[in-house]
Amino acid sequence: MTGADQAATDQAAGAIERARGGDARALARLLSLVENGSPGLRPVMTALAPLTGQARVIGLTGAPGVGKSTATAALVAAYRERELRVGVLAVDPTSPFSGGALLGDRVRMQDHATDPAVFIRSMATRGHLGGLSRAAPQALRVLDAAGFDVLLLETVGVGQAEVEVASLADTTLVLVAPGMGDAIQAAKAGILEVADIFVVNKADKPGAQEAVRDLRTMIAMAQRGAGEWKPPIVTTVAVKGEGIGELVAKVDAHWSWLDSSGQRDARRRTRAREEITAIAVAELRQRVGGLPGDSRLDALADRVAAGELDPFTAADELVAATSARQD
Amino acid sequence: MTGADQAATDQAAGAIERARGGDARALARLLSLVENGSPGLRPVMTALAPLTGQARVIGLTGAPGVGKSTATAALVAAYRERELRVGVLAVDPTSPFSGGALLGDRVRMQDHATDPAVFIRSMATRGHLGGLSRAAPQALRVLDAAGFDVLLLETVGVGQAEVEVASLADTTLVLVAPGMGDAIQAAKAGILEVADIFVVNKADKPGAQEAVRDLRTMIAMAQRGAGEWKPPIVTTVAVKGEGIGELVAKVDAHWSWLDSSGQRDARRRTRAREEITAIAVAELRQRVGGLPGDSRLDALADRVAAGELDPFTAADELVAATSARQD
Repeated sequence: MTGADQAATDQAAGAIERARGGDARALARLLSLVENGSPGLRPVMTALAPLTGQARVIGLTGAPGVGKSTATAALVAAYRERELRVGVLAVDPTSPFSGGALLGDRVRMQDHATDPAVFIRSMATRGHLGGLSRAAPQALRVLDAAGFDVLLLETVGVGQAEVEVASLADTTLVLVAPGMGDAIQAAKAGILEVADIFVVNKADKPGAQEAVRDLRTMIAMAQRGAGEWKPPIVTTVAVKGEGIGELVAKVDAHWSWLDSSGQRDARRRTRAREEITAIAVAELRQRVGGLPGDSRLDALADRVAAGELDPFTAADELVAATSARQD
Repeated sequence: MTGADQAATDQAAGAIERARGGDARALARLLSLVENGSPGLRPVMTALAPLTGQARVIGLTGAPGVGKSTATAALVAAYRERELRVGVLAVDPTSPFSGGALLGDRVRMQDHATDPAVFIRSMATRGHLGGLSRAAPQALRVLDAAGFDVLLLETVGVGQAEVEVASLADTTLVLVAPGMGDAIQAAKAGILEVADIFVVNKADKPGAQEAVRDLRTMIAMAQRGAGEWKPPIVTTVAVKGEGIGELVAKVDAHWSWLDSSGQRDARRRTRAREEITAIAVAELRQRVGGLPGDSRLDALADRVAAGELDPFTAADELVAATSARQD
């Protein structure tokens, strides 16, 4: 290790120590390293690896308008009653350009804004497919090492990104609201497969019973082996706090099941696999994308666009050039 | 070239020739090669490269329920009146598990099912982030080479995948429907930036004028340089064919603008760049993922999950092992 590396590692260790002590600014700076994909992230990750693995990660997902932020706020309140430290990470994979990521919704979290045992962070993924898979697990890792007991991972949208986020959580809550056709959309999007618990929020609105019934039918139809977890359905009115106690109890029940079934470790290993692969692929993608000023890809693209070359042969040439450069 | 390669190339050339002659089964088999990521795809792509670049690709996107399939069917009818051959590719990036990709909606396309100058294909992307970026452009390439004049690329969902699909089209239509809050969702999802034409479908429903007004405001607010295209808003009732004539006229106007501005070639070069990169990254990802039975990644994941190793160092080891293996 060079002297500069050692200095970076020492500095990272100091920042992590401060974050563990409750210094929100130190924590925010660490998360900015994650969000920006900064080179300074690497010594931080090295230093905090031994501190991870304690936090319980709860994912909340569902279409826009189902009340995810409100449910998140209600869960924060419930876990604070238990005197647990709670971190909230809100990721918006549908916001590739704006970078605004749910900040408007954060207004609802104001009740907790002055509580030092609650930390809230919004994160946009800025248009990179794969950006989410890189940044979100690392941000969870930082919050875990900072000593939070519960991490709430909130994400918006329906689709692959959501499924990907769900794979980061120990327990995934899929929220639907009455009358939005969410249940069917959820089924289409493969959300059924990732849901550990279904939450029918806004249950005081017309159509709540139909939504419960649709979900129940879908759950009944799903193939499930002996000893596998059967997702319960909880009805809530998060804005009034109704049903949140039951929801927390179901989350606890799922946590116990994860432990007793050995699934907790299995899920965390899978998560680590995906995290490593994402970083490795990002590294390789960067090499393939070419150095700034490297016109190789442009020249290949011109030939493909002109019909002179097929994209496979072009990709072969690119990979060969990349491999030649990498030593 | 080996004898086997030559045979494969000859066979591919024959299949392409049959597809160009209107043999729907030959075309369907070629598209299956694309969908399955078959090794047989490579000689096909080599053989058809010189035949590509003629078709005009029109993308249709928007949230579930806005009427994309109905609008697609109406556009098929409009282009058939002009005696153009029309290919439809329906891609469902929100369907990672089911593989069912919009097949239900295809019922509405029955009017065209017996027309030999219309070819319709649904495609699911089976859970691979990046699967869409690999398969969709190649499928368009096959349809282009098969001699279709117009390719309609329909995709569902709001988010990154959609933006990615939009980048494949010469002209991207973003559909919204009244009263769904789509306009705001579209803005959040960065869809505004990819729309060449906005379509307010179901314009006979309450709230259509509000949707038009919201979109107009958003378009007015967007930064736009001199000579840049300003997306028009077309109102349609696709199920009755209302507004489709105007929509086709706007698509023509955009096509003319693409030509006169030089944007058509620029977009196609960008598309080729992305296609090459996607294939190259997929190849590298496969190497990183390890050979079947290769336990390297598993061992690294165990150590990361246990906090013994950070994911960056693990990724380094994986990439180094991959590079060592690739020659």
